[in-house]
Amino acid sequence: MSAVDVPVALLGYGTVGSAVDRLLAENAEDIERATGHRLRVVHALVRDPEKERPHRPPAGVLTTDFAAIREDPSVALVAEVMGGIEPTGGYVLDLLRAGKPVVSANKQLIAREGAELFRTASEAGVQLRFEASVCAAIPVIKILREALVATNVHRVLGIVNGTTNFILTKMEEGAEYFEALAEAKRLGYAEADPTEDVNGADAAAKMAILATIAFGSRVTLADVAYDGIEAVTGAHVAAAREMEMVVRLIGAATLVDGKLDVRVGPALVDRHHPLAAVEGAMNAVMLQGDAIREITLEGPGAGGMETASAVVADMVSVIGTTGTGFLQNDACWRELPRLPPEEARSPYYVRIDVDDRAGVLAHVALRLAEQDVSIARLIQHQANGEAALHIVTHEASTGHLQAALGAIAGLPETRGAPSALPVVSDRGVPGLGWA
Amino acid sequence: MSAVDVPVALLGYGTVGSAVDRLLAENAEDIERATGHRLRVVHALVRDPEKERPHRPPAGVLTTDFAAIREDPSVALVAEVMGGIEPTGGYVLDLLRAGKPVVSANKQLIAREGAELFRTASEAGVQLRFEASVCAAIPVIKILREALVATNVHRVLGIVNGTTNFILTKMEEGAEYFEALAEAKRLGYAEADPTEDVNGADAAAKMAILATIAFGSRVTLADVAYDGIEAVTGAHVAAAREMEMVVRLIGAATLVDGKLDVRVGPALVDRHHPLAAVEGAMNAVMLQGDAIREITLEGPGAGGMETASAVVADMVSVIGTTGTGFLQNDACWRELPRLPPEEARSPYYVRIDVDDRAGVLAHVALRLAEQDVSIARLIQHQANGEAALHIVTHEASTGHLQAALGAIAGLPETRGAPSALPVVSDRGVPGLGWA
Repeated sequence: MSAVDVPVALLGYGTVGSAVDRLLAENAEDIERATGHRLRVVHALVRDPEKERPHRPPAGVLTTDFAAIREDPSVALVAEVMGGIEPTGGYVLDLLRAGKPVVSANKQLIAREGAELFRTASEAGVQLRFEASVCAAIPVIKILREALVATNVHRVLGIVNGTTNFILTKMEEGAEYFEALAEAKRLGYAEADPTEDVNGADAAAKMAILATIAFGSRVTLADVAYDGIEAVTGAHVAAAREMEMVVRLIGAATLVDGKLDVRVGPALVDRHHPLAAVEGAMNAVMLQGDAIREITLEGPGAGGMETASAVVADMVSVIGTTGTGFLQNDACWRELPRLPPEEARSPYYVRIDVDDRAGVLAHVALRLAEQDVSIARLIQHQANGEAALHIVTHEASTGHLQAALGAIAGLPETRGAPSALPVVSDRGVPGLGWA
Repeated sequence: MSAVDVPVALLGYGTVGSAVDRLLAENAEDIERATGHRLRVVHALVRDPEKERPHRPPAGVLTTDFAAIREDPSVALVAEVMGGIEPTGGYVLDLLRAGKPVVSANKQLIAREGAELFRTASEAGVQLRFEASVCAAIPVIKILREALVATNVHRVLGIVNGTTNFILTKMEEGAEYFEALAEAKRLGYAEADPTEDVNGADAAAKMAILATIAFGSRVTLADVAYDGIEAVTGAHVAAAREMEMVVRLIGAATLVDGKLDVRVGPALVDRHHPLAAVEGAMNAVMLQGDAIREITLEGPGAGGMETASAVVADMVSVIGTTGTGFLQNDACWRELPRLPPEEARSPYYVRIDVDDRAGVLAHVALRLAEQDVSIARLIQHQANGEAALHIVTHEASTGHLQAALGAIAGLPETRGAPSALPVVSDRGVPGLGWA
């Protein structure tokens, strides 16, 4: 790694790939100052080199021949910006086995095939970096792996899907869910098929990656309990506002007594909590650890240029650490058990519709108390012989809360099924807040 | 750098130094997994090795002999956690010249002697890292130098002093300035002599470091125009609230057409802006750049353990990049001119007390219009023949605003001197907001 000129290759030359090429060229001097090296794209794997492209690399760079990239001894590292699982995963494994460091922007690939990819990289003694796979330009992976190496991170809380955060912010401003979703599509914040965004699957894949890196134990999509925002209504948003909170789709990865709990779902966030301030299509991640209390990172979680910026930063970091043994370990070095879901603890917001009669509140409070669920705040709205109870509990186990709600559902005064959402209100205090 | 065992030394073994030693020991396995190396403190320079200490290193580690550290060929890097300018600066220069990488937590030293320190490090071909010198555990320096290497950062906005942010947050809750300051002292958020916090000097030193790194041009304390919070009153806080804003002590470093503008002062921050959500003794830094739009980092800006965590992260990063040429450049590679203060542009909040008579507003509006200052919002409060005009302007140059206020002060209807504070309301849009 003594040559100033460092040939690199790209898998893919679409929006992100061509932006990577452009950033490398436009910032070549900055990169050379920082690293002593000049990164130059010599190959870019594409399906059709003849296709019209807004940005064309020099002749000979575009290629359909993967083996030529793998076998080119001059290529010092490869950035995978083609997306997809197949044939991408096979390419990345091949490159790692051939001793080439890889930078990937591929959330699905890292979330699904991470175990094999990291093991292969570690065995080959080369780096696999993947900053752009989670929250685009927000450097959360770098911070977890490098800046927080000496702090036990015990919780990662995140707003890691911009589409749903945009929709929830619009609902706060008065829009209905479907209006907000339509606007998100119109502005390009939501795909034509937004299913994976609104059902929480996209956020779950990102939380699986974050939890894996934060806790050093493999977390796959199957380990993440997730729920989306389809059931969030104006009533939730209004109730949240009345209690000085906002509704957000929160990913939470928590280490509880050596057990892992990773989940995604709508939650009520206290308006003084840093995540309550995250508006529109922005993403944010809060890292809570022993030595640092908490660090919150906010930024755009998507975008071609933002993603490319993270890819380039990873490329520069690989070049800056090659040959030192840095971050060539498999990020997973232990296997932690999962926390049984009913043992997860959190304060909760509960809504119970009841007949407006004397004694109902006492019955409800008793059922909660029988399960050790204590009431922190209560608001009661009465109209037309009905009452809506809005309750915020102190921290309770999910199992106890569910048992209490079951008992309350069985009361003769209760109308319909009680509903509950976790509450995020703490600021880095371990053992409190949404677990 | 092939040995697993890496001897390191500390200058200083107080709160931060002993916490660094503890974090290195407690996280030795994590660090070895990440770097392949085990960092072990073999010397710690102190004035009095016999002093009672809560945490004592093994016998022989504490020493009063600086030369023994400099001359020990086994010492791979030194962390400076003793503070002060003399003799600290001389020690750091000596170590760099002796070829030893240095990690420093010393804000005053980096802000005042940075030019010589960086030049010396660059000439010796060793790294000088200083994450802990700004905002403790928030990894803003790492992000600027590594994650954002391929994005032109054109603005850094920060709340970089926890004491003043705590006081301003308390004033929002209704406390008077002196009550809030007394509480900050009681809770340990303010020193016995809080002068450098409340007058803005501490924030200015941090902004000088951040601007230097962000823009690659030397910025010293003398280049930073700063103002503190001593003149902030309950009236400012109330006016801010009425306009859905909060008062914060904001540091702003901006690149305007190749010219630098770095300043610290109280400002009104729109409540939807990420910095408005920063409460209590927390710090936050927003980085705005071409490829990333904006990234905001929030966390504790002080604390022994938080500072130690940043020092250890720097030590690990030095070990992880030794021999690669990474970040061995002087961060300053150009010399940018300063923006003349009157050319700085920002929206402003202006308060003008006037006689409550017909035509006054027209006179005021005319004086503003004559200087190209346009009114975005206006609130007028009338009582007892007086009127208070609260105006938020669109972006205007500071020179034009001052000229308009001078003209308004000369109106016969104006009572007392008009006052103005900049407004922070944009979200990463270049050319808008407090410049």
